[in-house]
Amino acid sequence: MTDEIFRTSLHAINVGANLFADALDEQGIPLTRVAWQPPAGNSDEALGKLLGDPRVDAANQLAVQRMMAARPRVVDVRPADEVIPGMHKRLLLHAGPPITWERMSGPMRGAILGALLYEGLAEDIESAERQASGGEIAYAPCHHYSAVGPMAGIVSASMPVHVIEEPVFGNRTYSTLNEGLGKVLRYGANSPEVIEKLRWMQRVLGPALARALRKMGGLELKPLFAQALQMGDEGHNRNKAATALFLREVAPSLVETGNSTEETTSVLRYMLGNDFYYLNLSMASSKAITLAGHDIPLSSVVTTMARNGTDFGIRVSGLGDRWYAAPAQPVQGLYFSGYSAEDANPDIGDSSITETAGIGGFAMAAAPAIVSFIGGTPDDARRYTLEMYDITVGEESQYQLPTLNFRGSPVGIDIRQVVRQRLLPIINTGIAHRLPGVGQVGAGIVRPPMDCFVASLRDLATHIGDT
Amino acid sequence: MTDEIFRTSLHAINVGANLFADALDEQGIPLTRVAWQPPAGNSDEALGKLLGDPRVDAANQLAVQRMMAARPRVVDVRPADEVIPGMHKRLLLHAGPPITWERMSGPMRGAILGALLYEGLAEDIESAERQASGGEIAYAPCHHYSAVGPMAGIVSASMPVHVIEEPVFGNRTYSTLNEGLGKVLRYGANSPEVIEKLRWMQRVLGPALARALRKMGGLELKPLFAQALQMGDEGHNRNKAATALFLREVAPSLVETGNSTEETTSVLRYMLGNDFYYLNLSMASSKAITLAGHDIPLSSVVTTMARNGTDFGIRVSGLGDRWYAAPAQPVQGLYFSGYSAEDANPDIGDSSITETAGIGGFAMAAAPAIVSFIGGTPDDARRYTLEMYDITVGEESQYQLPTLNFRGSPVGIDIRQVVRQRLLPIINTGIAHRLPGVGQVGAGIVRPPMDCFVASLRDLATHIGDT
Repeated sequence: MTDEIFRTSLHAINVGANLFADALDEQGIPLTRVAWQPPAGNSDEALGKLLGDPRVDAANQLAVQRMMAARPRVVDVRPADEVIPGMHKRLLLHAGPPITWERMSGPMRGAILGALLYEGLAEDIESAERQASGGEIAYAPCHHYSAVGPMAGIVSASMPVHVIEEPVFGNRTYSTLNEGLGKVLRYGANSPEVIEKLRWMQRVLGPALARALRKMGGLELKPLFAQALQMGDEGHNRNKAATALFLREVAPSLVETGNSTEETTSVLRYMLGNDFYYLNLSMASSKAITLAGHDIPLSSVVTTMARNGTDFGIRVSGLGDRWYAAPAQPVQGLYFSGYSAEDANPDIGDSSITETAGIGGFAMAAAPAIVSFIGGTPDDARRYTLEMYDITVGEESQYQLPTLNFRGSPVGIDIRQVVRQRLLPIINTGIAHRLPGVGQVGAGIVRPPMDCFVASLRDLATHIGDT
Repeated sequence: MTDEIFRTSLHAINVGANLFADALDEQGIPLTRVAWQPPAGNSDEALGKLLGDPRVDAANQLAVQRMMAARPRVVDVRPADEVIPGMHKRLLLHAGPPITWERMSGPMRGAILGALLYEGLAEDIESAERQASGGEIAYAPCHHYSAVGPMAGIVSASMPVHVIEEPVFGNRTYSTLNEGLGKVLRYGANSPEVIEKLRWMQRVLGPALARALRKMGGLELKPLFAQALQMGDEGHNRNKAATALFLREVAPSLVETGNSTEETTSVLRYMLGNDFYYLNLSMASSKAITLAGHDIPLSSVVTTMARNGTDFGIRVSGLGDRWYAAPAQPVQGLYFSGYSAEDANPDIGDSSITETAGIGGFAMAAAPAIVSFIGGTPDDARRYTLEMYDITVGEESQYQLPTLNFRGSPVGIDIRQVVRQRLLPIINTGIAHRLPGVGQVGAGIVRPPMDCFVASLRDLATHIGDT
């Protein structure tokens, strides 16, 4: 054998650090370099326990099978405190993991002050600020109430919310109605025009959609979004097709149940002018899907990724409702004219629930047009999706990606693979100005902090040690 | 030099027939094979005149510049005889080049009989057949009246037609309203339910759309379709996104100008259930675009491709209104369950005007989802579009193809390149049953007969010889 090695010509394969490879290269030896890094965060021991365990694999399969079997339907639009159990006037829900007023970012504070004005709890900003910081208002993550909200994600008692029913596993989820672009509460704006628009949504838009959806007996969301994936949407940063398809579905019933021509027209015009409308439905649908995969003992599948503008937090199917949080990251992307990275708030919003459910950044291959919005090329979009297959458990056959020859989108992030390969989930997202009320200043791509995955991995390894 | 050839190792390039290449291959000589065929139809002399002539190149550039500068708007819906100059009760327009009753295919005859019933000219099929075959009815191509119709393409006097205005070059074009799928006149069906639907379109759909479009001041079609190209449409066999976007645009005005809730709802439901609605607008828009490029002296750009189910005909910008026709081809594609190639009518319809304007099969790269409907893979879709750049003069920057990194779609078919390379335009199309009234039996791809291009090339060579 040794003999043979010296008689034949060498072709070396170098795994990991390039020191050896560089030396061979200098000597003209044919060489294949394999990128490799040790797992993140000294996780060899935890990975040793978890990677080999068939119980984890089985639990993950179950989690993802349940996610794929979920059938979310939007059935109604109702004021939050009428439908979200435990919701009350002095409770505000927010995006991301738990956070105190003191640590909240600018856009989240701005949105909270706006919500207090909207609810009539405060008459002016000063009074709102006193209440918000003075312990009179309770704060909790939307996720603790099966709700999700984009950017600041504030839900207050009288805001109309979509009601999503998932009959297979019996869950209900909620999301606010999308406010459109420009000056909006979710980016921390709270001027009178912002509040006035919210009141119109409460008075006109919410009830109109509610009447239409009830007449229709609800609308199943996965088949609708499956069509939108064939039409250039990825369900996070691009929802143009899904919004048009949703509008098309509800329009006849909106007309049939409308109070007046003027109201119905104003609702149709609002939807026509808001290509992001479906985002909030995409989020609530994704929340129902990920809930179906949550709480499977020993599963290492991520069932929540959410950001409050200060911290990024994840939750894992087999680790109950515990959050694993670390500082939120800056978003890499394109800025609107006049803005730069200095203006940007760190990553914010519950919208990364879409990636948790296998769409958004994970389905970017379906949305080549999005790269003109966030930078890059259609090939990058395809590459991002292909990468995500390496850290996911399943492929969602209902969500087919045309440019990948109708392969199902990658679904079910496995914290073991994220840590082992140092390969973080990719998230498409908007960029908020760090000051309240300025609004969106760009869009791009962000990856969660690795620490969340390392910490949850260690906990899961401890769990499995105990069983 | 000779010395050097014998001293260095050989690498041969073989152009065209493989006899020489095969011999080298056997001797183990490295080889590159270049596919090449002589031009079609003994056209060396004509091509010699036309390929080198800068006047033809300049004329083609002008033709395509005009096509790209055209700005079609749909402004109204009106009965054909109110808006199409020369239209009258005993004139029926049909798809494709001129044809007599005797030579018409089954679906076209069926549609003509249906139109006579619809117009009240005949009381039953027997009487309709007597009139149709007895010289009492005049027939003419839609194209002679700046109109276009899918499949049989029959336009009769009282049918409502879209009115497209093109203000830059001052043209007006027309198309009927899309009937949806199932039993429809354009596939030759003429049963009472077909006629009843046409009457509803005349009584309700046409006037409703007319009121809405007039209130809107019309709707520009290129920007709308440019969005649809980012959403998986190619504007011929797939019009789902454009239909949803069109519905979204007209819905508010439909509500505002509607006669009653019932009527408006029925119109919205009709559009919701008909993903092909936009096809007829895509065709009339393409007709306005190609008209803008027509009648440029010496231009070898194709400005019409149309089929009547018996013949395929083209017209060329520099050759006036003369048709170059040859037998229509069978369509290669997928058949609906229960049907096969034996059931198929040859290629039929004016819808190939979309390819003439650089969309449809030419923009197939934008519509990977379509391949599941006609057979093939998303890579085939991309390859078809890439091929078409070889026979076209320009790239339409307004029609960007996302999977080709937003390259403009190939536009302006040059008969010189078609003949020289033996590379025929690709057309996406539906397959009609050869008997009247059965309807669509499949969908696929077809190429025009080469004879049309060879004959027109010779005529153009004669022309240029005269100048």
